[in-house]
Amino acid sequence: MSTEALNRILGGPTGLGTAGLYPGRRPTPPGPPAPPGTGVPPGVGSPPPGPPPQAAPVPPGTDAVSGPAAGPPEGRPVPGGPIPGLYHHPVAYDTERAAEVDRRIKEWAIDEIRLYPPEWEEEFEGFAVGMYMAACHPDAVDVDRLMVAARLMVAENAVDDCYCEDHGGSPVGLGGRLLLAHTALDPLHTAEEYRPRWEESLVSDAPRRAYHSAMEYLLAVATPSQADRFRHDMARLHLGYLAEGAWDHTDYVPEVWEYLAMRQFNNFRPCPTITDTVGGYELPADLHALPATQRVIALASNATTIVNDLYSYTKELDSPGRHMNLPVVLSEREGLSERDAYLKAVEVHNELMRSFEAEAAALALACPVPTLLRFLRGVAVWVDGNHHWHRSNTYRYSLPDFW
Amino acid sequence: MSTEALNRILGGPTGLGTAGLYPGRRPTPPGPPAPPGTGVPPGVGSPPPGPPPQAAPVPPGTDAVSGPAAGPPEGRPVPGGPIPGLYHHPVAYDTERAAEVDRRIKEWAIDEIRLYPPEWEEEFEGFAVGMYMAACHPDAVDVDRLMVAARLMVAENAVDDCYCEDHGGSPVGLGGRLLLAHTALDPLHTAEEYRPRWEESLVSDAPRRAYHSAMEYLLAVATPSQADRFRHDMARLHLGYLAEGAWDHTDYVPEVWEYLAMRQFNNFRPCPTITDTVGGYELPADLHALPATQRVIALASNATTIVNDLYSYTKELDSPGRHMNLPVVLSEREGLSERDAYLKAVEVHNELMRSFEAEAAALALACPVPTLLRFLRGVAVWVDGNHHWHRSNTYRYSLPDFW
Repeated sequence: MSTEALNRILGGPTGLGTAGLYPGRRPTPPGPPAPPGTGVPPGVGSPPPGPPPQAAPVPPGTDAVSGPAAGPPEGRPVPGGPIPGLYHHPVAYDTERAAEVDRRIKEWAIDEIRLYPPEWEEEFEGFAVGMYMAACHPDAVDVDRLMVAARLMVAENAVDDCYCEDHGGSPVGLGGRLLLAHTALDPLHTAEEYRPRWEESLVSDAPRRAYHSAMEYLLAVATPSQADRFRHDMARLHLGYLAEGAWDHTDYVPEVWEYLAMRQFNNFRPCPTITDTVGGYELPADLHALPATQRVIALASNATTIVNDLYSYTKELDSPGRHMNLPVVLSEREGLSERDAYLKAVEVHNELMRSFEAEAAALALACPVPTLLRFLRGVAVWVDGNHHWHRSNTYRYSLPDFW
Repeated sequence: MSTEALNRILGGPTGLGTAGLYPGRRPTPPGPPAPPGTGVPPGVGSPPPGPPPQAAPVPPGTDAVSGPAAGPPEGRPVPGGPIPGLYHHPVAYDTERAAEVDRRIKEWAIDEIRLYPPEWEEEFEGFAVGMYMAACHPDAVDVDRLMVAARLMVAENAVDDCYCEDHGGSPVGLGGRLLLAHTALDPLHTAEEYRPRWEESLVSDAPRRAYHSAMEYLLAVATPSQADRFRHDMARLHLGYLAEGAWDHTDYVPEVWEYLAMRQFNNFRPCPTITDTVGGYELPADLHALPATQRVIALASNATTIVNDLYSYTKELDSPGRHMNLPVVLSEREGLSERDAYLKAVEVHNELMRSFEAEAAALALACPVPTLLRFLRGVAVWVDGNHHWHRSNTYRYSLPDFW
């Protein structure tokens, strides 16, 4: 496959109405070169030349909010900068949309679903969900659609925090709690006598109020197949939480492949896969189910999930107890120093990113359907936006001193 | 909606090639009448008049193997007979197909995947999977397709037995085991260095060998969307196992609605929903995802799962430890005697069955697409076949003395 052909395909449709598909990305900075033989030319993820985006116009000056430019791969990291050597694409985002999402999400969290007590307000604001969603969904139809993604993101974090982790979570009994929460997404169909108690349960704690409300908003704009896709991805997520919880409970350090398998489920996947719903189009269910599409989604989601392991590494080290992440598992299972394990985790990430881009390019070539091309780009931009959020969220994250 | 219209719709297509759609059902015996106002005429699940089935010809004399005729609702049960008062439809099945599946499944279990040690042979044969699948899939294209269903059924039971229940299972660490097994259905996409160890894991124990092999056979005949549907239903099943395991581990007796929610996940659902794959057609993904279709599938699956609670009641009472089932939960949570709790569970089942039939009829009327009509009948016949297997499997089950 020639570089020109790849760029043409990844550039995607250039006709009427297609200009808004790559609004967020900026030109790719120099990253580590692809290893020989992968067939992926550098810069394959770059936006096509063309008119500026239409769907989400980026106001002048927003470049400044996308953080410092990528440092040289071997340099020392700067606060808000990327991990040295991490293969990524910088993005810009719409600051006005971000601010509006921040305003509305707080209204929703406080007034609509009573999500958190007053003392969590700073943490909630530090989460910076407006920037997160604006960076990940630059082609969102409007702020209403961005809010659909934002509510789900906040709800997913509420369930993780309250049931599994920081705020009172525990692996003990987790299977029961997560299943009952899952019925807020995938409803119970039962005998009339027992329906009212189930309905009451959906508003009986903050995580369930969040899931239930966020799902209602999703259902208002998603097709039934998009909703089904989301439920499946959330079932995967809950299976991932439960595997992590089981290993935590039994004090088991998984083998590296086992950790990577768990992390394919305890994964950002439900977030990029709503990109078409947020963008106001639909990737048809039969194209979504193709093995090649499933592989591309999994690779992208796995790469972007390891980004979380890397940026939250010092935060998790500082938390009570041992928190499993890829560097920790690599260190324990392969006898590596903390630094070498961390740097190897960066390499694992980079390989997954390159595999994602290579297989997305091959799929785009094999099946150049406009909705699929746009979806693949939507996933790619989500990955870029997720990296941007992690690197610039200095409220939550700081980098280790390994360079 | 008139009775005539309903019967016409549920009778479904009567043109060329449609006669094989109801091969298994026999005329419905008198069951409890539908409650007033449900709009479901009695006998709505009966087969349409017409020529005998083509896809699965039932040899003469097979009626005799479908067990004793349904006793009067208030009579005492006879071995191999139905639970008095349980709303159900009797079936006949193809004994030659059943015997061929029994022969081939043993070959698969022993020679292909080394599923069980010699001392489990009697238990394996007592499972009667040939009769089970022949009764549940009378419109299977051929024995090869019946084998696709049979392998999955055996694999699902192997995972449940070995990881969760009778044969060495435990709720401790279950989340890790089930997730790794789930990757035999929903494959890992990871860095090259870690792929070989994952691939080895898929043949490293009997449950994973069973899932992996059964899934390979499914993938050879299912469309990508059908495979995706199956994976989703299996993720639900695993979430159900994990909720049950969590409650078992923490010695928690769920409220009745909580139990019913768990049982909607720890559920036969992955079995009826492959009816189209086994039947050689496809319910389109967009029709499968419709909220009304999802509700019908859930109601049918919930009814047929409670059949398991009812027939396995004495088996579970005799097992070590407390085994949760609907009568036990009703007794503990509503202060009912064992007998009254059991009879109330029968009523819950009957309500779910009637809701299923009413909503299937309404859906068929609203969306009379031939593949959907055939799928709805396939689910209905699966429910009938599952009841037949439970009632006639006296090797595993016997009824309590409550009448």
